[in-house]
Amino acid sequence: MVFCMQGKIVISLDAMGGDNAPDAIVYAADRACQELSDIHFIIYGKEAEVAPILKGLPRLSQYAQFIPTISAVNDDDKPVQALRNGIESSMRKAIDAVANKSAHACVSAGNTGALMVMAKKALGELPGIKRPAIIGVFPNRQNGTVILDMGANSECDENILLQFAHMGTCFARAVLEKEKPSVGILNIGTEEVKGRVLEKNANSLFKQCPHLNYIGFVEGHHVTNGEVDVVVTDGFTGNIAVKFSEGTAKLCMDILKDTFNTNWYTKLGGVVLKPFLQKNFSEIDPSHKNGAMFIGVNGIVVKSHGSSGIKRNLSAIKVAYALAKQEINEKIITELGSLKKDNIGYDIVSKIKKTFGMES
Amino acid sequence: MVFCMQGKIVISLDAMGGDNAPDAIVYAADRACQELSDIHFIIYGKEAEVAPILKGLPRLSQYAQFIPTISAVNDDDKPVQALRNGIESSMRKAIDAVANKSAHACVSAGNTGALMVMAKKALGELPGIKRPAIIGVFPNRQNGTVILDMGANSECDENILLQFAHMGTCFARAVLEKEKPSVGILNIGTEEVKGRVLEKNANSLFKQCPHLNYIGFVEGHHVTNGEVDVVVTDGFTGNIAVKFSEGTAKLCMDILKDTFNTNWYTKLGGVVLKPFLQKNFSEIDPSHKNGAMFIGVNGIVVKSHGSSGIKRNLSAIKVAYALAKQEINEKIITELGSLKKDNIGYDIVSKIKKTFGMES
Repeated sequence: MVFCMQGKIVISLDAMGGDNAPDAIVYAADRACQELSDIHFIIYGKEAEVAPILKGLPRLSQYAQFIPTISAVNDDDKPVQALRNGIESSMRKAIDAVANKSAHACVSAGNTGALMVMAKKALGELPGIKRPAIIGVFPNRQNGTVILDMGANSECDENILLQFAHMGTCFARAVLEKEKPSVGILNIGTEEVKGRVLEKNANSLFKQCPHLNYIGFVEGHHVTNGEVDVVVTDGFTGNIAVKFSEGTAKLCMDILKDTFNTNWYTKLGGVVLKPFLQKNFSEIDPSHKNGAMFIGVNGIVVKSHGSSGIKRNLSAIKVAYALAKQEINEKIITELGSLKKDNIGYDIVSKIKKTFGMES
Repeated sequence: MVFCMQGKIVISLDAMGGDNAPDAIVYAADRACQELSDIHFIIYGKEAEVAPILKGLPRLSQYAQFIPTISAVNDDDKPVQALRNGIESSMRKAIDAVANKSAHACVSAGNTGALMVMAKKALGELPGIKRPAIIGVFPNRQNGTVILDMGANSECDENILLQFAHMGTCFARAVLEKEKPSVGILNIGTEEVKGRVLEKNANSLFKQCPHLNYIGFVEGHHVTNGEVDVVVTDGFTGNIAVKFSEGTAKLCMDILKDTFNTNWYTKLGGVVLKPFLQKNFSEIDPSHKNGAMFIGVNGIVVKSHGSSGIKRNLSAIKVAYALAKQEINEKIITELGSLKKDNIGYDIVSKIKKTFGMES
């Protein structure tokens, strides 16, 4: 591969995505330069909005080139509409930079659906991958748990889940820095009889995989307690699980805030406790490992949360940097190659032929 | 129906179920007598354990009869095993009391799987019901949201979801005391294109039902915010959603407790805030509306949480009392009758025949 900047990790940024764009993206890039000396940015965005910010950031200018774009994808654009009309948008240009190998990875806090459709179109799937998935880190008091699919594929079969397991393993190695991450299938109980046909079939299949550190079925509390490193499920279930957790955490935080605001001495109690609460809750702060990846496409595309401020965008940039530095996609290809060699899961027809001695 | 106690609501109690049995169940019954003058209990349990507690509760003795049983279902018994070996258990006897119309409703904090299998065997389904479901109240800062199925049926079709919607409506009327509860289908987005085939088909079907206050697709935050009264989904998704919420709430509470225990002045802050926190978090305390019902069987069976103390068991008893008083099952039969009259959803074959003019 030929990249434009020898020895540098190049990140293409959609400066126009998310509620706090472009400021929160551009300032995050500036902070990243302070921490990572071998990073370089290509920033895409509207000149009138981005150029004035860049002017005030002399350090970033040394680490970045700015390429003005004429349009931006809106949050409420339908994905297909964005694909059709957004050829000149900052989001599309940032993805194209990865496609034409000007950048190692792209980061956007914009419209998720549009980002996925554009990434699939511009980058294509990795060789052998059936379905790209949305992968991210569920925050807990351990190191966090990698979860996929968080919403790209509502319906899956066991072979797709097996690919998710291998992609999740590679992602956990790069982002959680675990050499042999444990993998579980999300289910409604840990006994082998539990679950749908999908979970039972996947369980049989996963047990055949020597390359996977498969620990069996896991439940919600294994994820919230951080007792598993990678949890796989279909995109419907994963999305529901993550959203219920977000909703419940917000509910608890709202009640906590209202309690502090009850009267003058609860306010005082709040002042005393606030720094300790901030420190302790930062353990499960999604900012730590912000950045969901659209994994399985032929290029690194990281989605920062739409409401991200500088801190969370910085975290997404660091995730993209780690994934690029670790060459996640090359590792996925190697991982899937070994699976093919063992003849597990992928080519059902040839497997049946082999089992029944029908091979030519 | 002939009940043994004219004018009383009779509850059969499995005194041996749950982590804190029999004390937490029997004391809860005593507390219920204080609040509900027309309640009566039939208490089933081992004589050596239950009789000494009853001796110390003279009030309860006026409101209850005690029937000693020789065995109890264990928490780790497999459902089929409990069904075969548990004929003489306190759990089975309590269910049988509902089956032979000695009691209006049964309450147990014991083994959920065993309770479901026994209830199905001893009571059978309500006429016309395809699949009984586990129904309960998801706590939020509004009145709570009724959710079903929480785990009885991992895989469902849209006709089953429609029955869930009607059963959920009847349950919400009885337990949340809402005349026209709103109903949503749990999904990964609110737009009509979102979700699996199941959600799309169910959406089309629900829209044809004039008897349902159907508001469309809902997401996790609609439930945690209390923006919908009844949410329906398959038992796999419902179980995962509830467990992720429980896990997340526990995670937040653990962090809060650890923060209070940091040093002497956080402890002091904790002392100041504790009564206000308790008051505010009691809004979402599952004790309020504890008691999941196995809905769709021909009798009222309420499951109290296995770890329940007196307060939560009391809440489960009150839920059983309300469901019996409101004659929930008679209302479900009426509700489903009106659906049949409108020829919606239930009998696909005759519907197709009607549509294509093939009726004889």
